[in-house]
Amino acid sequence: MKRTILILGVFLLSSFSIYAQQNLDFSGAQGIISPQVHEDNTVTFRLDAPKAQEVLLQGDWMPAEGWTPGRAAMKKDEKGIWTYTTSALRSDMFMYNFIVDGVKIVDPNNVYQVRDIANLFSIFIVNGEQASYYKVHDVPHGSVTRVWYDSPGLKSNRRLTVYTPPGYESSKESYPVLYLLHGVGGDEEAWISLGRTAQIMDNLIAQGKAKPMLVVMTNGHTSNTAAPGESSKGLYKPIMMTPDVGSGNMESTFQDVINFVEKTYRVKKEKASRAIAGLSMGGSHTLFISANLPNTFDYVGLFSAAYRLNRPDAQEIPAVYANYEKNLEKQRDNGYKLYWIAMGKTDFLYQTAIDFRKMLDEKKVKYVYRESDGGHTWSNWRLYLSEFAPLLFK
Amino acid sequence: MKRTILILGVFLLSSFSIYAQQNLDFSGAQGIISPQVHEDNTVTFRLDAPKAQEVLLQGDWMPAEGWTPGRAAMKKDEKGIWTYTTSALRSDMFMYNFIVDGVKIVDPNNVYQVRDIANLFSIFIVNGEQASYYKVHDVPHGSVTRVWYDSPGLKSNRRLTVYTPPGYESSKESYPVLYLLHGVGGDEEAWISLGRTAQIMDNLIAQGKAKPMLVVMTNGHTSNTAAPGESSKGLYKPIMMTPDVGSGNMESTFQDVINFVEKTYRVKKEKASRAIAGLSMGGSHTLFISANLPNTFDYVGLFSAAYRLNRPDAQEIPAVYANYEKNLEKQRDNGYKLYWIAMGKTDFLYQTAIDFRKMLDEKKVKYVYRESDGGHTWSNWRLYLSEFAPLLFK
Repeated sequence: MKRTILILGVFLLSSFSIYAQQNLDFSGAQGIISPQVHEDNTVTFRLDAPKAQEVLLQGDWMPAEGWTPGRAAMKKDEKGIWTYTTSALRSDMFMYNFIVDGVKIVDPNNVYQVRDIANLFSIFIVNGEQASYYKVHDVPHGSVTRVWYDSPGLKSNRRLTVYTPPGYESSKESYPVLYLLHGVGGDEEAWISLGRTAQIMDNLIAQGKAKPMLVVMTNGHTSNTAAPGESSKGLYKPIMMTPDVGSGNMESTFQDVINFVEKTYRVKKEKASRAIAGLSMGGSHTLFISANLPNTFDYVGLFSAAYRLNRPDAQEIPAVYANYEKNLEKQRDNGYKLYWIAMGKTDFLYQTAIDFRKMLDEKKVKYVYRESDGGHTWSNWRLYLSEFAPLLFK
Repeated sequence: MKRTILILGVFLLSSFSIYAQQNLDFSGAQGIISPQVHEDNTVTFRLDAPKAQEVLLQGDWMPAEGWTPGRAAMKKDEKGIWTYTTSALRSDMFMYNFIVDGVKIVDPNNVYQVRDIANLFSIFIVNGEQASYYKVHDVPHGSVTRVWYDSPGLKSNRRLTVYTPPGYESSKESYPVLYLLHGVGGDEEAWISLGRTAQIMDNLIAQGKAKPMLVVMTNGHTSNTAAPGESSKGLYKPIMMTPDVGSGNMESTFQDVINFVEKTYRVKKEKASRAIAGLSMGGSHTLFISANLPNTFDYVGLFSAAYRLNRPDAQEIPAVYANYEKNLEKQRDNGYKLYWIAMGKTDFLYQTAIDFRKMLDEKKVKYVYRESDGGHTWSNWRLYLSEFAPLLFK
């Protein structure tokens, strides 16, 4: 029998070169490295495309024209490999595509990608202080769970993502909760994939900069029960403007989420241990939810917040919007520990934030204002999360 | 104040067309549908590439030549859109790429993809009986958690994926556990992304065909602590032949996984409530683990199992391999309920399975043999899981 074992072993060894998981061409991966992040924070991109006439690189570190990101022409060498090297980049996570003779693709040599609505982007990370929060380090890691909750208000089962801090499973402690909401293009995956929430929280907690907490990431599109591909709608092509935007439905039923979390997880069930924050549309949701539940959250974060997303076809204004001023006054009178507003200097919502802060000033609603460079970008939202989380539950 | 609110609302409404999540070109997504799965199970693929000279479609439903999958030429219309329509396909999940003038890409119009080692594939599902297990239906959904466990045997913290069945969070019941192992190209993500484990389990449980159970998906590469991109190794280009293959390290330390699961989750801690199964290299792991812990599992599943992956440079044979025959005899004498072996007729390991079964016959080790069409493919491994899970814990 031992002989048979050895023969089989040798057979398998000789098969290693073709020992594939699947019968789809493993030699097809191009044998080049792209992107290559150099020690000096310059980055080289490569694509093996001898027959292409033009290859452009499109990336979110290059100055955009309106909503069109900056582009750079790549150059072909004698072997047909197109390359481009950037100048030194700041420390961040970046997104890019190649445009090959007019066709926008992800980098075939980079398996790390994110989806934003119906767009796929390749990603990379440039080392340094800020991106050190976005990288995985050898520190204790929290768990990330996709779980379905019942929303009586929306009459549906819905999917959400929960980050539980390192040690949650083995401790008997109860933890505070940050509810973290996405923008109009997002879903319950956005803060994990584009926002690097698990990495940011792991690293902040390991450094003692943030308290161990749960982070609950909901799906703010009430016409969907889950992210694209994760519901019975199947593998459809996602769109940005779902019919629920501006309906007020998510804002008016958010207590369902809190009820589920406080029933299911070992968390502290008091105002001092609840925070809510959101980006863009999620910032709009956050300001209405926190006013509509005016004695629920001690910490509120608006990241590049939209104010309110009206619908022109709405027959009547939903109560959660119509009662906003009264609710806000209650929220103010009940008191809270932090109302944090962050906005980028070149954000298209910059004026919105000025008007909103003016209204808060008139009503003597206290807040902290943080202005950053840049615009309506995930670069800013990751930055804001890395700054906001350390302010919570102290 | 109400006036300000309305003005802001109108402002945002008029901004909807450019109201993007991120400053990367949202007009770049091609306005076409690809793939389009028709009622008759034919599928049309489309790519807008007027400047391309040749576009090939490569997919795992087409007959392969060795490890090179079948290809078909797409045709360009007068608008520069390349199309191809298949004949009617069987019900399954399929993987494909486009090859545009020699560059292999994922379909830019399909956001649904999977990674296998360093390759990206677009996916789609063709309706019918088998794929109904792979689709998300409006049934109760289990939770999927990525969690890190301590392995004293490997002296590291490692990541694994746990499926907990619907109702786990709200019940007080204890559940049985299936340990489900990937192949040489995989990691703790493979059974979720390529294997559709969460969907298969949700659907089997909803139909009463499988008992509610946990499914624990480990990372069988002991030189990694987590899937590519999820450890401190960063965003590197993954390789198939990691140095741990054939080392016996995963097989000899598997008790660490069981200890973590039985300490952390509400599970039944007896042989009758433990199953282990794996595909290819994971099948090899399964047969050695279940013999090395010879009174631990009542259910064993080998899916297209490799037998043993030798290393030519090994100085001595690891005990978990050297003691295999003795361990197997103990496993046989201790008894078990099911030893299930599945293999595809055209699998390159077909002869290996014949030799292995012959050895089992000689030793009077009882098993059930299931032979399917096809080869060493995820199509078969999903099929095997959908057949194996209903046999467990009855």
